[in-house]
Amino acid sequence: MPEQTNVSSKAAHTVSAYDEELQFLMRRIAEMGGVAERMVEESITALMNSDVGLSQKVISDDLLVDEAERQIGEKAVSIIARRQPMASDLRDIIASIRIAADLERIGDMAKNIAKRVIAVEGLAQPKKLLRGLEHLSELALTQLKEVLDACATRSAELAKAVRERDEEIDAIYTSLFRELLTYMMEDPRNITACTHLLFCAKNIERIGDHATNIAESVYYMTTGIQPENERPQGDETSSVAVTVDGK
Amino acid sequence: MPEQTNVSSKAAHTVSAYDEELQFLMRRIAEMGGVAERMVEESITALMNSDVGLSQKVISDDLLVDEAERQIGEKAVSIIARRQPMASDLRDIIASIRIAADLERIGDMAKNIAKRVIAVEGLAQPKKLLRGLEHLSELALTQLKEVLDACATRSAELAKAVRERDEEIDAIYTSLFRELLTYMMEDPRNITACTHLLFCAKNIERIGDHATNIAESVYYMTTGIQPENERPQGDETSSVAVTVDGK
Repeated sequence: MPEQTNVSSKAAHTVSAYDEELQFLMRRIAEMGGVAERMVEESITALMNSDVGLSQKVISDDLLVDEAERQIGEKAVSIIARRQPMASDLRDIIASIRIAADLERIGDMAKNIAKRVIAVEGLAQPKKLLRGLEHLSELALTQLKEVLDACATRSAELAKAVRERDEEIDAIYTSLFRELLTYMMEDPRNITACTHLLFCAKNIERIGDHATNIAESVYYMTTGIQPENERPQGDETSSVAVTVDGK
Repeated sequence: MPEQTNVSSKAAHTVSAYDEELQFLMRRIAEMGGVAERMVEESITALMNSDVGLSQKVISDDLLVDEAERQIGEKAVSIIARRQPMASDLRDIIASIRIAADLERIGDMAKNIAKRVIAVEGLAQPKKLLRGLEHLSELALTQLKEVLDACATRSAELAKAVRERDEEIDAIYTSLFRELLTYMMEDPRNITACTHLLFCAKNIERIGDHATNIAESVYYMTTGIQPENERPQGDETSSVAVTVDGK
């Protein structure tokens, strides 16, 4: 295929060092996304297996995503300052800053889950709840993987699909929330562990939210359209009431 | 004082329409900050007084901050695209995008607290816990007010002070977290209300975190230096264990 028919090359600018700089940004986002994804996976594995060693690895890996965010931010600003990018490149650059911020938060969520592995170690953790958490995290991870794919392949379609699927995570989170409350009421010895698991569930739900934010940035980057903020709204547990007799 | 000695006027660009555009951004940030601050105040008042009407106002006000963020983002990108800003202006513009994102999240936190007002209405809410929450929210609001001042007055000093004070909020949040767990263990009928209050406390702690993020953006905007990510790290409750017998 001749070079000029390749839409993604945006042939209008000729400075190849500039192209390389833009590609550097996208490559760094992809790498950062890979690290964040691995941190989420490992934090859940550590939680399921009470693996304190693995959880400590996740905690220290958080520095990698922090550093990546700083680097992407600095590079983005430096490209804008020196290259005076045209509109479509500018969208890519601004989207990189936003996506890096969301990935950094996802790293924080994974780190927070990892810290709780240490807190709940040795406490009774109802198996059924752990399975529920695992299921929730699988959905969140799928969202994260697909939105990173959408970013790498510049697919507005895929980004849109991710954004629309966030509701599923929210529904499962809400039912897990109810279940956790019920366990706490059944036996006060469950309260400490369940509270930590509640925050783990909330962290996973927020990972889903950040994946949705990234989907919006990818959509903006590829289409130039900022999606309306009216998306299916997250966490419905704020209105959940469970009473001791289960009503 | 002669115009040219005023550092903040950045006399290098002469297009006054451009200055107005930059000022528009900062004015919009200040307005948005005012709305976010009011939402936080009102969500806490609603929680303290079980005022469902006020909580509904907070929930609908969230649209204002969502809209403000979108507007600031669009304006920022359009200024960069058309004006090719020089480095120091570019920092202001990039910082506006970041600050608007944090303010939008603060609005979300206030909305989440407001939603829980409805969930806990009519349930027993230990007075001492509510006072603890109120105290936590006063600290978070002080942080928010001061960081908005730092932004309006372009004070790197003030921004630095806000960033360093985040630890205080974290310490109080951690003790409140312990107290909430203890109440739940004492009487299972407290569990539903306490769980919602736990999330309210977490939301307030996160408002403090977002104020700290804004402090970092203001610091960057005024000095050009990105503060190292190693700041006093938030939520220490992830390692809190409370057992039924209170040990």
